[in-house]
Amino acid sequence: MRQVDRRAFLGVSGAALFCALRGEVGTRREVLAHDARARGAKPPAADAVDGLTFPIPQPQPGGAVREYWIQARAVRWDIAPTGRDDWMGMRLPPHRKRTFWAFAYQLFGPGFANPLGPPSIPGPTLQATVGDVIVAHVRNADEHFDQAVTMHPHGVRYTPDYDGAYLGDYTRAGGFIAPGSEFKYTWECTPDSVGVWPYHDHGPNHLVNTARGLFGAIIVREPGAKLPDVETVLFLHSFPPNITGLDEQFQVINGRTAAGNTPTVRSRVGQDVAWHVFGGDSMFHTFHVHGHRWKDASGVYIDNPNLGPMNSVTARWTEDNPGRWLYHCHVGPHQMGMAGWYFAEE
Amino acid sequence: MRQVDRRAFLGVSGAALFCALRGEVGTRREVLAHDARARGAKPPAADAVDGLTFPIPQPQPGGAVREYWIQARAVRWDIAPTGRDDWMGMRLPPHRKRTFWAFAYQLFGPGFANPLGPPSIPGPTLQATVGDVIVAHVRNADEHFDQAVTMHPHGVRYTPDYDGAYLGDYTRAGGFIAPGSEFKYTWECTPDSVGVWPYHDHGPNHLVNTARGLFGAIIVREPGAKLPDVETVLFLHSFPPNITGLDEQFQVINGRTAAGNTPTVRSRVGQDVAWHVFGGDSMFHTFHVHGHRWKDASGVYIDNPNLGPMNSVTARWTEDNPGRWLYHCHVGPHQMGMAGWYFAEE
Amino acid sequence: MRQVDRRAFLGVSGAALFCALRGEVGTRREVLAHDARARGAKPPAADAVDGLTFPIPQPQPGGAVREYWIQARAVRWDIAPTGRDDWMGMRLPPHRKRTFWAFAYQLFGPGFANPLGPPSIPGPTLQATVGDVIVAHVRNADEHFDQAVTMHPHGVRYTPDYDGAYLGDYTRAGGFIAPGSEFKYTWECTPDSVGVWPYHDHGPNHLVNTARGLFGAIIVREPGAKLPDVETVLFLHSFPPNITGLDEQFQVINGRTAAGNTPTVRSRVGQDVAWHVFGGDSMFHTFHVHGHRWKDASGVYIDNPNLGPMNSVTARWTEDNPGRWLYHCHVGPHQMGMAGWYFAEE
Repeated sequence: MRQVDRRAFLGVSGAALFCALRGEVGTRREVLAHDARARGAKPPAADAVDGLTFPIPQPQPGGAVREYWIQARAVRWDIAPTGRDDWMGMRLPPHRKRTFWAFAYQLFGPGFANPLGPPSIPGPTLQATVGDVIVAHVRNADEHFDQAVTMHPHGVRYTPDYDGAYLGDYTRAGGFIAPGSEFKYTWECTPDSVGVWPYHDHGPNHLVNTARGLFGAIIVREPGAKLPDVETVLFLHSFPPNITGLDEQFQVINGRTAAGNTPTVRSRVGQDVAWHVFGGDSMFHTFHVHGHRWKDASGVYIDNPNLGPMNSVTARWTEDNPGRWLYHCHVGPHQMGMAGWYFAEE
Repeated sequence: MRQVDRRAFLGVSGAALFCALRGEVGTRREVLAHDARARGAKPPAADAVDGLTFPIPQPQPGGAVREYWIQARAVRWDIAPTGRDDWMGMRLPPHRKRTFWAFAYQLFGPGFANPLGPPSIPGPTLQATVGDVIVAHVRNADEHFDQAVTMHPHGVRYTPDYDGAYLGDYTRAGGFIAPGSEFKYTWECTPDSVGVWPYHDHGPNHLVNTARGLFGAIIVREPGAKLPDVETVLFLHSFPPNITGLDEQFQVINGRTAAGNTPTVRSRVGQDVAWHVFGGDSMFHTFHVHGHRWKDASGVYIDNPNLGPMNSVTARWTEDNPGRWLYHCHVGPHQMGMAGWYFAEE
Repeated sequence: MRQVDRRAFLGVSGAALFCALRGEVGTRREVLAHDARARGAKPPAADAVDGLTFPIPQPQPGGAVREYWIQARAVRWDIAPTGRDDWMGMRLPPHRKRTFWAFAYQLFGPGFANPLGPPSIPGPTLQATVGDVIVAHVRNADEHFDQAVTMHPHGVRYTPDYDGAYLGDYTRAGGFIAPGSEFKYTWECTPDSVGVWPYHDHGPNHLVNTARGLFGAIIVREPGAKLPDVETVLFLHSFPPNITGLDEQFQVINGRTAAGNTPTVRSRVGQDVAWHVFGGDSMFHTFHVHGHRWKDASGVYIDNPNLGPMNSVTARWTEDNPGRWLYHCHVGPHQMGMAGWYFAEE
């Protein structure tokens, strides 16, 4: 890849992709060119990229190792499995294609012995407590895109070995997991890791592959923190035509469009309900839940906070308002798909 | 409407409207198609949508009922009544059309006896104190668009009966006020309702009709809270050509473009001045006032905070800096219209 | 200019510029029309625009006068002096033009005796303490664009005389520094000026000329505040083709694109490191640094906060994580250029 004149390529595609990832112009061809380029990316050199070596983090006294086995793979992804928009009370047109090649993380049991579920968008939620170490065994099981991937975490502490970022000539092993390969990341949960964070691909084609679905959440809690009774992770994002090859721009939550396909969240009155909501694409969003409001970290009551790409807000309350409620992004056109049901039962 | 293949329609229009509501491409036709579809939306069934029934909220001891009579109607709306841009010191071109069919809320006296003013963008500001109940009698007096509307509030507490949201098959009476009909919303002002919130249409064509002007503000205060001497509600929004049918994209505040048409705010030195500023369209904005800065809820001094769609910031200070000042959104191109005068007199 | 029918001009260009400044459509012609119009802008009348006169602020007891000599001038600006993208490990195509006419502030010694460096994007960082007065002598040394400029500050306190804003018929002397002219601004650092603020052009063509590079930072500290060991000012912005006349959309930091051209920030373990990061164009951005997280003003740990046009966030920590790290905006397509290196050494 280093021989390739990237700007000559980007000269054609830079401005286009700029719009393309936002779904505003048709540059499917450009995405495919990014794919082709990434297939040619060279793995890191065998020798160290610099003189720095780092110890492998260990849990603090009383902490644990939280171990996850996760593979990344291509998957045929249906944007609307029910075929319906349940908010608007209608079928989606059956002749419209809604399935494409996504890229998703999938949770496995210890040693990759068995899948614990299908590939999911977002990927499995990693959970830990301050003092713990998260060990993520990540396998690239892609047989479709033929590209290296990684897992780059936010929030947790890591040395350059476990950054999970492709850095050209300075890439370390964890920044390039080739198809068929595996890497073991070790991340520390320090006191300033408390919060809800994204992880995502940061390999040689990360803009495209993250947009295809390679992202998920990490939750780090204080020791002894009360767990919510209901806890939901939502990524507000989009699948534009250049990413999917489909005819439509889809506004989605967790990879699905329209209430009934997006997560339906359920609680009972009296329960402690937490929503961890991320911006998952290149847009800015807001998160609104009907019938509810909550206090932000500065002490202000809100019901519709802003969300940027790969940052999050947590809404948390004790449920006291039963009913069928809508939750959605409040950006006007995003609402056509980026919405779901919340049922609070008495 | 439920028989209509919405996606077949959206298949043509989804991506287009996505851009159209942002004013970036010409899809006036798509907006008109949304209008046509909404005209066919069915009212909610006479029987309950589920087994849930809810008591009508009552004021807390010491609280009051704050009663408002508001009608929604189409109105010919002039984007720039003065014909001038007073910041740039010039006339706007008289041959350019600046009037279109907006949709606006209008305040009436008790029992809809008499209008207390013209339809306004934003609509009347609803004010209450914690412990109060707000009762909003909303009448759909539209004789132009022939569409059901609603009033959906943020911040206040409401049961599903008073959500004011069209929910397809699950719509309750308050989620569909047909032309010529009326609905009485009852909303509670709970301790976590303290703040400044939007209300807006959430009927079967809410994306389009909210963009036409169907929005306003709710202010809920602590009991005994000091009232500001000067209090201003500003919505930063836009009127794109697809919404107005006009030739230009207008960046507006409270439905008007350019200083002299947008609100001119006046205070005197020593007065307690509060600005409640909303994002009122699908864009993100900032709010900047020359010559002033204020503390945000986290204790940081700011003069240009971010604003998302249908959320708000409050800027508040004791006036100490007399002069003619400009206020505006700091997004570059928005400034061409989204600006106004502030006079602080000695 | 006041005779010119601005809207007739904007009627052609309003919606176009709206997009153009965002780099999404090619309206280089419109930018040139703005330039032409601004060349015709009239200087303020010799007499006062209103009856108001204001004292010149003086430092508080114990405060100082912080005096700066700064000129604004056109400069040929290379967007990528190294010719490389060091993150992706490749040369940028040598046949691609990367140099254009920017507009930049340049720091001089007392009395404009000698330049203290080349014109820079951002301009010189102005620093002061509460109680001080900042005096900025600003000279318009433009010999290319032939347009009046100003310096409008955020955060500090100023009377209308020192607002630095062109206001049409209400413009004061400081709102219009013609080519070859000079103006002396005097700004107070009050207790609510503590923070990190932008300054920028606010003359008759401010949208275009600010986008060309006429902006910088002001840092106001509490008396006795500890200075960080490493302090970096970053503006995340863009150079779209309509501004530069080049073929590409460039995503830049401090006027440069791609790691190796953007600032490389260096620290040592144990140092107090502060990053002051601004949105510098019409987009919204986020700021992410690999391997680090920090507490925001509300007490929440973050590593990727939102940034709006001409507002800022400060990230500050004691360095404890050595290595080569990437920092970047997290908006997907912005990452193609809006990224840089951070070296924390042991």
